[in-house]
Amino acid sequence: MSAAARPLGRQLFAEGLGTAALLCAVIGSGIMAERLSAGNNGVALLANTLATVFALYVLIELLGPLSGAHFNPVVTLVLWSKGLFAQEAPARAATLFIVVQLLGAVAGAWLAHAMFDMSILQFSTKLRTGAGQWLAEAIATAGLILVVLRAPAGKAAAMVACYIGAAYWFTASTSFANPAAVMGRMLSDSFAGIAPVSAPGFVLSQVAGALVALGIDTMLGKQATPGDR
Amino acid sequence: MSAAARPLGRQLFAEGLGTAALLCAVIGSGIMAERLSAGNNGVALLANTLATVFALYVLIELLGPLSGAHFNPVVTLVLWSKGLFAQEAPARAATLFIVVQLLGAVAGAWLAHAMFDMSILQFSTKLRTGAGQWLAEAIATAGLILVVLRAPAGKAAAMVACYIGAAYWFTASTSFANPAAVMGRMLSDSFAGIAPVSAPGFVLSQVAGALVALGIDTMLGKQATPGDR
Amino acid sequence: MSAAARPLGRQLFAEGLGTAALLCAVIGSGIMAERLSAGNNGVALLANTLATVFALYVLIELLGPLSGAHFNPVVTLVLWSKGLFAQEAPARAATLFIVVQLLGAVAGAWLAHAMFDMSILQFSTKLRTGAGQWLAEAIATAGLILVVLRAPAGKAAAMVACYIGAAYWFTASTSFANPAAVMGRMLSDSFAGIAPVSAPGFVLSQVAGALVALGIDTMLGKQATPGDR
Amino acid sequence: MSAAARPLGRQLFAEGLGTAALLCAVIGSGIMAERLSAGNNGVALLANTLATVFALYVLIELLGPLSGAHFNPVVTLVLWSKGLFAQEAPARAATLFIVVQLLGAVAGAWLAHAMFDMSILQFSTKLRTGAGQWLAEAIATAGLILVVLRAPAGKAAAMVACYIGAAYWFTASTSFANPAAVMGRMLSDSFAGIAPVSAPGFVLSQVAGALVALGIDTMLGKQATPGDR
Repeated sequence: MSAAARPLGRQLFAEGLGTAALLCAVIGSGIMAERLSAGNNGVALLANTLATVFALYVLIELLGPLSGAHFNPVVTLVLWSKGLFAQEAPARAATLFIVVQLLGAVAGAWLAHAMFDMSILQFSTKLRTGAGQWLAEAIATAGLILVVLRAPAGKAAAMVACYIGAAYWFTASTSFANPAAVMGRMLSDSFAGIAPVSAPGFVLSQVAGALVALGIDTMLGKQATPGDR
Repeated sequence: MSAAARPLGRQLFAEGLGTAALLCAVIGSGIMAERLSAGNNGVALLANTLATVFALYVLIELLGPLSGAHFNPVVTLVLWSKGLFAQEAPARAATLFIVVQLLGAVAGAWLAHAMFDMSILQFSTKLRTGAGQWLAEAIATAGLILVVLRAPAGKAAAMVACYIGAAYWFTASTSFANPAAVMGRMLSDSFAGIAPVSAPGFVLSQVAGALVALGIDTMLGKQATPGDR
Repeated sequence: MSAAARPLGRQLFAEGLGTAALLCAVIGSGIMAERLSAGNNGVALLANTLATVFALYVLIELLGPLSGAHFNPVVTLVLWSKGLFAQEAPARAATLFIVVQLLGAVAGAWLAHAMFDMSILQFSTKLRTGAGQWLAEAIATAGLILVVLRAPAGKAAAMVACYIGAAYWFTASTSFANPAAVMGRMLSDSFAGIAPVSAPGFVLSQVAGALVALGIDTMLGKQATPGDR
Repeated sequence: MSAAARPLGRQLFAEGLGTAALLCAVIGSGIMAERLSAGNNGVALLANTLATVFALYVLIELLGPLSGAHFNPVVTLVLWSKGLFAQEAPARAATLFIVVQLLGAVAGAWLAHAMFDMSILQFSTKLRTGAGQWLAEAIATAGLILVVLRAPAGKAAAMVACYIGAAYWFTASTSFANPAAVMGRMLSDSFAGIAPVSAPGFVLSQVAGALVALGIDTMLGKQATPGDR
């Protein structure tokens, strides 16, 4: 998922577009799933999961060669901290990546609302809080960062998509694992939403999870090169 | 997904066969899903999604080497407009592609009805209209065209199939994204149908979405070659 | 899916084992699905579909290099008729393949019954008959034969599995497409069963579908070699 | 899935981490699935299946190059018995692998409980016993061992994940096929649990299934090399 040496403007466009598409997919499929599933939230989350897995796979394959397909400020920060963010001015580039990710997330939420004839501007009222939820976000993010850091290049898209598909179900928080996802979902009073008051706890837990992942990554040692296998 | 230099007649046969099979799969699985899912439309759309994803993947792998596996007039027009339609007389070939796609779509719908013991000739009464639906079709088609234009050759089948699987859920219209699909579904008064009166709005929105995709494609710049990755 | 030049005895063992495993998976998952899904047959068929797709993929990858992984008398007959059945005495080998496939199917059904504490010997009472069902079996088998004949070698397992996953839903018969499947399911009075009186119509329709597939295969012309793509 | 020549400590860390993650995924998704699926156990097992398949695929791809990604004492014992366990002191290494697998399984169960705000220490009360269940565990484990021994290297992750996804449905026991899974699930009074009193029967059946797999593996003969295909 390393970004090629492309003009920064195009990379930012790709990151913004991809994050918008991801949040539109997550929130839009959540709305559709809730409307269709006749009160069975298991069916709704299954649909939300499949749509997210499919969308993530396609977006990472499509935009990975352009910007690295982070779509996630924590991913950008981790890659920057490990010197894997190949830019002339990496700190500035990382900052701009995060800005367009957050803006893209907002655009994606609003696009979903426009499609489903809902009022564009809204705020979620779904409280997601407590130690269990925070532990879940830390675990979800730790797993994601380990996949991002260690997946063989040609399998990153499938592995990130499958990882999130699993984490939607095995974490108590349905695995946001992404501050940009928190941003977009905060602005949607629907199935995938999170109340703004619950957002800081989620983001802090995600950062904590990323730090844990960095520790585990070091303990696991140098990644096996494909040839080792 | 570029077509090899094969006789045009065989390419047309492949396009017609593939579009018929696609519409038969979409409509047939919609009928089966509605009959079995006991009124839970979430379960029905999950089944319809899986069947469509599996069928699209197989059809593109199977017929892509023969005709490019467009199965979609908007895809044919976009590839023709970009000079990616390798024929001696591209305008004539593109026209014939679209004709067999539309005929194939009709045949596919009728085949599904024959299997499920329904009257062959019927028209959908399901209205699908309004700004949200049209926006959804534009977004669905824009995404599909970007995938078609930018997917690495060996991954096109999986990426198109997964994209449509996601778009069935994240767009408010369940993502037709294809005038041939509109044609076939118009002729089926079942789960996947669309009333003829709603068809022009869908097709116009699809064309608009394709134009947006062409703009975004230019802004993203030259596609990364596999070696860049 | 061409068989390597291995001792015939081992090929027959692989075919029998694989067909037993396939029928055990199809029938066993049907029983489990019906028991768990609280009367929602859409949920039951979704589960039955996923289990079949996963099992088929694994079995073809695992046993394809040993016997070609036919698991299906119609596939064996088609490959034999096209001279693609590489044996010293192909007619005798094809006959023996079909015998072990049918025996394997019976063993698979009985193994499923033993696991689920049902009486081993039973006969289905589920009638599956009529023009729609027969047309469905012909279409299902025609599609399967086209996939078997034309799938690129490295993708055959995924494509056959996905094809059957789609056909479970888009055909009115839930796509048996295999006389050995008919044999095993005839012996199971459960979700996946078929009454013995309905079996001849299914098998004849499957043979008819295979003949249609051979005609379409000729019309599509020489398969594109991977290099053409 | 053969382990590279890495320091044993890192291999043990990878095995423990992976088994913990696997059990956390299996048990966590079982809890979530049961809570959301409104009493439809078919929906719950579908969700549990998808989460397990996705998690297994990712964990084997991620940790396979480090430790071989056994996550399962029976797999470790089989590879050790066949001399495929590349260590200086294979018996000691195999013993340590099994110890960390069992400890990891306990940690994974407890992590799931912590996330879902359940009491950490608990014991399942779900009896799983009888000839059908034991036969099912033997079959489930035999299939898993055959996949582990015979899958081509690059496809092992996908094949093991798909195999387990199928076996969740086609075996009467929902396919534990792993004494470490029994250990973790014994400590969870939730959807995926097994009462401690039922554990010995499951583990003995798994060992019996592994012995059957070793016999079948010999009868199938030398595995086809990828080049043979």
